[in-house]
Amino acid sequence: MGSPQNKLEVIFSPDLFKHYENPKANVVIVDILRATSAICTAFENGVEQIIPVPTREEARIYKEEGYMVAAERDGKVLDFADFGNSPYNFTNENIGGKKVAYSTTNGTKAIHQARYNKMVVIGSFLNLSAVADLLAEKQNDVLILCAGWKGKFSLEDTVFSGALTEKLLDTGKFYTICDSATASLDLWNLAKPDIMKYVDKVAQRERLRKLKLDDVLEYCHTADSSGKVPVFRNGVIEEYRKLAGISEK
Amino acid sequence: MGSPQNKLEVIFSPDLFKHYENPKANVVIVDILRATSAICTAFENGVEQIIPVPTREEARIYKEEGYMVAAERDGKVLDFADFGNSPYNFTNENIGGKKVAYSTTNGTKAIHQARYNKMVVIGSFLNLSAVADLLAEKQNDVLILCAGWKGKFSLEDTVFSGALTEKLLDTGKFYTICDSATASLDLWNLAKPDIMKYVDKVAQRERLRKLKLDDVLEYCHTADSSGKVPVFRNGVIEEYRKLAGISEK
Repeated sequence: MGSPQNKLEVIFSPDLFKHYENPKANVVIVDILRATSAICTAFENGVEQIIPVPTREEARIYKEEGYMVAAERDGKVLDFADFGNSPYNFTNENIGGKKVAYSTTNGTKAIHQARYNKMVVIGSFLNLSAVADLLAEKQNDVLILCAGWKGKFSLEDTVFSGALTEKLLDTGKFYTICDSATASLDLWNLAKPDIMKYVDKVAQRERLRKLKLDDVLEYCHTADSSGKVPVFRNGVIEEYRKLAGISEK
Repeated sequence: MGSPQNKLEVIFSPDLFKHYENPKANVVIVDILRATSAICTAFENGVEQIIPVPTREEARIYKEEGYMVAAERDGKVLDFADFGNSPYNFTNENIGGKKVAYSTTNGTKAIHQARYNKMVVIGSFLNLSAVADLLAEKQNDVLILCAGWKGKFSLEDTVFSGALTEKLLDTGKFYTICDSATASLDLWNLAKPDIMKYVDKVAQRERLRKLKLDDVLEYCHTADSSGKVPVFRNGVIEEYRKLAGISEK
């Protein structure tokens, strides 16, 4: 095996995406608390399709068209929605075999930015190894795009980026000369020995705690509960293996 | 003493400044390799005034108006300039008592963004303690703005932000609920025991090495060689105590 051929970079906010432009890269969207964790839960529990929508009005239109809708603002479920944005709502009973519109501001912005890239993958701790395996198989450059919080840097997204960076570098197929990847890896190594203790200091934990929505913290930071990789294509998110016509092992 | 009153935040790129908007905050501009290190060197060595200019054409105009000009592109001194951008050029012989136009892309962008803020301070390891002391004396909110590299996250600017964050939190006058500040502090704590070893992995080191301009690395990461705080006001940078009419101790 020669030297690694595929470049790996981490982007700390959707606002910085333009500086890392690389259309031939696969992009991993990261919004640990809670959008990408919720989306991975939904696919693990058999959802057919998820449509990420940025605004309340768009979510309402999907509801009128017969979709299930997950939408909340400031911790309150919107009146027309079926349930809120917590991963815990995405049970098989609720969403198995269904199409769901998921209203999320940070996550949707990030997903749509990457729409012209080769492949857009939804990443979270839940499917960490599955995402790493798929990216290593594809052998393209990789951009890990943190959704952040209202454009700001987010520590939990960064820690996840470090965990994924570690796995990708370990394959020997990727290299990085990116300061954000280096920082992510260092922060992941700090967090790894006791991730719940580390995550206790992230700002989003406090925001969720005030809204009594922080019951998902441990769940969202536990690796590899799912082997499924959701992929965004043509406006919708579907499971990769289903899209590719690959039967489950 | 009650609980800390002044909010501290770190911004990893000029492109994210808008998300942290806070006009009553003092802003610290950070561009460790090499703009803010060079500017601090110049004031330590007696420069009268520095005008930060973003483009080659503006630098040329200042030259025609009789200013000294420090300007380079891709490691080459521009033909009309007096010298390049290395801190080592800013000796007392070269710039003592003079007005100098300093051409820098990343640094100038950051400085101009903050122009409507209360006070805009030039920070580097060279004047780390002096900057911390002045900010603690002022008791306003603080935004530490990393100039980064072409809009990207920069590890050396971040490590410095962590060092300054540590000093400010230690005064008991500041608090932070900012993930970038938390990450900066963690990375600074990793770097602190052997900063030159840590800095060996920053991307900018490799860029400077290729241009044979990396001789400034240790100098730019050594704390407190200067007690002077350059401040940007009305388009020019001058020394704070001179501006404020305070005589030197």
